[in-house]
Amino acid sequence: MPESHAHRRTALRDQLRSRGLDALLVTNLLNVRYLTGFTGSNGALLVHAADEPGAEQLTVFCTDGRYATQAVDQVPDLPHVIDRASDLAMAARASKDSARHGHTGYESQHVTVDGLDALASSAEGVELVRAGGLVEQLRLVKDDEEIEALRMACAAADRALADLIQHGGLRVGRTEREIARELESRMLDHGAAGPSFASIVAVGAHSAVPHHRPTDAAVHAGDLVKIDFGALVDGYHSDMTRTLAVGPPADWQRDLYDLVASAQAAGGTALRAGASVREVDAAAREVIERAGHGDEFMHGLGHGVGLEIHEAPALSKTGEGTLSAGMAVTVEPGVYLSGRGGVRIEDTLVVRENAAELLTLTTKELVVV
Amino acid sequence: MPESHAHRRTALRDQLRSRGLDALLVTNLLNVRYLTGFTGSNGALLVHAADEPGAEQLTVFCTDGRYATQAVDQVPDLPHVIDRASDLAMAARASKDSARHGHTGYESQHVTVDGLDALASSAEGVELVRAGGLVEQLRLVKDDEEIEALRMACAAADRALADLIQHGGLRVGRTEREIARELESRMLDHGAAGPSFASIVAVGAHSAVPHHRPTDAAVHAGDLVKIDFGALVDGYHSDMTRTLAVGPPADWQRDLYDLVASAQAAGGTALRAGASVREVDAAAREVIERAGHGDEFMHGLGHGVGLEIHEAPALSKTGEGTLSAGMAVTVEPGVYLSGRGGVRIEDTLVVRENAAELLTLTTKELVVV
Repeated sequence: MPESHAHRRTALRDQLRSRGLDALLVTNLLNVRYLTGFTGSNGALLVHAADEPGAEQLTVFCTDGRYATQAVDQVPDLPHVIDRASDLAMAARASKDSARHGHTGYESQHVTVDGLDALASSAEGVELVRAGGLVEQLRLVKDDEEIEALRMACAAADRALADLIQHGGLRVGRTEREIARELESRMLDHGAAGPSFASIVAVGAHSAVPHHRPTDAAVHAGDLVKIDFGALVDGYHSDMTRTLAVGPPADWQRDLYDLVASAQAAGGTALRAGASVREVDAAAREVIERAGHGDEFMHGLGHGVGLEIHEAPALSKTGEGTLSAGMAVTVEPGVYLSGRGGVRIEDTLVVRENAAELLTLTTKELVVV
Repeated sequence: MPESHAHRRTALRDQLRSRGLDALLVTNLLNVRYLTGFTGSNGALLVHAADEPGAEQLTVFCTDGRYATQAVDQVPDLPHVIDRASDLAMAARASKDSARHGHTGYESQHVTVDGLDALASSAEGVELVRAGGLVEQLRLVKDDEEIEALRMACAAADRALADLIQHGGLRVGRTEREIARELESRMLDHGAAGPSFASIVAVGAHSAVPHHRPTDAAVHAGDLVKIDFGALVDGYHSDMTRTLAVGPPADWQRDLYDLVASAQAAGGTALRAGASVREVDAAAREVIERAGHGDEFMHGLGHGVGLEIHEAPALSKTGEGTLSAGMAVTVEPGVYLSGRGGVRIEDTLVVRENAAELLTLTTKELVVV
């Protein structure tokens, strides 16, 4: 959908001009994808700042011969250069027309020290200027096309978990590894290109480990099972955690679940445009602190999701800034009782002016399998 | 197995002293893993150059709180620092004892421009010196433990492909996507942590596309099916390509297969310690050029494999250097007849003094399914 990519490039050009840059050399592949729709493994982009008729045609895309055909399909609206060293080729392109590219920014949070030397060697006559984070800044607020991809990614995860539960995937005796594998396979059935990160499946006392990796430990009656996973669709990541009970929950499990669910609801309610990230974190954290479990919620409340599974903004005690409509974030409080068990409940949501839009639709009632 | 990691650190210390460095700040996670055995997602290492009794204890490992327990298991032989900003913490550590760390190298091919600023801010009193590629240089020659991991990775791929064929996985009507998914699932059955890269399954005319990605195209009688895939075991990658025939092959398919098989055998025979990478490439390429298909073999002959699926050395027309015993490389000639079909045959092998050791054991006779 070239239109949305053209809009993104227009927004970037505004940023470049406001910083006195003539152009930006975009070498981070995710940023190239964001600005062009190109999904290959080698690509770079020279975005020109000028805002005049035909200025878009000063912007040039580069990839190597393997992707020549794909680039025609995915990036029909920009001129292409085919070169294996795509970043250097774009630096050389700026150099060739150096009068128009006197101050060309580069992505200093991605370009390595050695890489900058190589760029500079190719960019004779061009002053390469540090310009980290410009595209990331735009990526903070998702457009409709991005939100649709996130919605599909969340739906694939919802459906996979429903299938898993319905087909007895969490029965006593199954191992964490088996569950993770089935869940990941079911996400593929529902259109995911793959899991959006290595799934966390944690049974029994393992559920008290925030980032437990699946082992051969098996489900026992009376366990909590914590599952943190997501699907990748069109390059966008979903992220959801649910904690389930195997057989009737003990009182402490029910109480712990209700506490985390209350905190999660409070976080979700606080999530709206204009709220500070600390305020949203605090809304959920206070619920847990009041119950005396503050020390057992030892991570941030959530994070942005999009082309990366973890991106800005961070919703945490020490986070900076306020939320804007269109940001996509997780809300994922947890309480972890070491050696006993833990509960985390996590949604992916889109910040809106008033109530946030929920993308992960699986119930947050305690499910007993 | 801390012993092999200690040996690797000793070899690195020799390198550091020969370059006049007091220490190396290792921030690339694969290099941290290589030197310590640590498999988490956040870690850094300050390796001290001194070769005196107890010098090993000047080397310090850092990770964050999530991995504190894992670090005790995996890195029992080094002192630990727990800090979320592991790279900065190690820079600060060098600064704290700056008399011993006057010239501290950093991995300039991995550290970003912004990252170097942050390191420098934490490393007061220390001169940070460019020192890219030192650990990669050591990683070129695999030790016994690494070769054992590669052997297991290759075995998982061999077994998965055998299972796939035996269970009719390549029958007429199956799609490329289905075949890739079954193959990846069967690698898990044989102990892989996952595929070592996105599997290539290419049926019919698609087999003429060197890096084709699986689609919904189905197997037809008379097709060539090209499968390029690998398994990941203990962090090490295998890489193998086989091309099979669906039903009795046509003469041109048989001829093409025999040609590529001859070239592949010639490359494998040329592979030995002391040979230049160009010489090995040429040994295979000449077979294909003599048959008039030089233009249809448009990629290098092979590449190193290890903790990365593509690492040094490159076996190609323009590659540099000679091979040493213990290097692990692929040999993978291909001939691609656009619009008709292609054949690639690829093994992973270990360079030895005389004949190379073959790790991928699947037959290279033309298999007809």
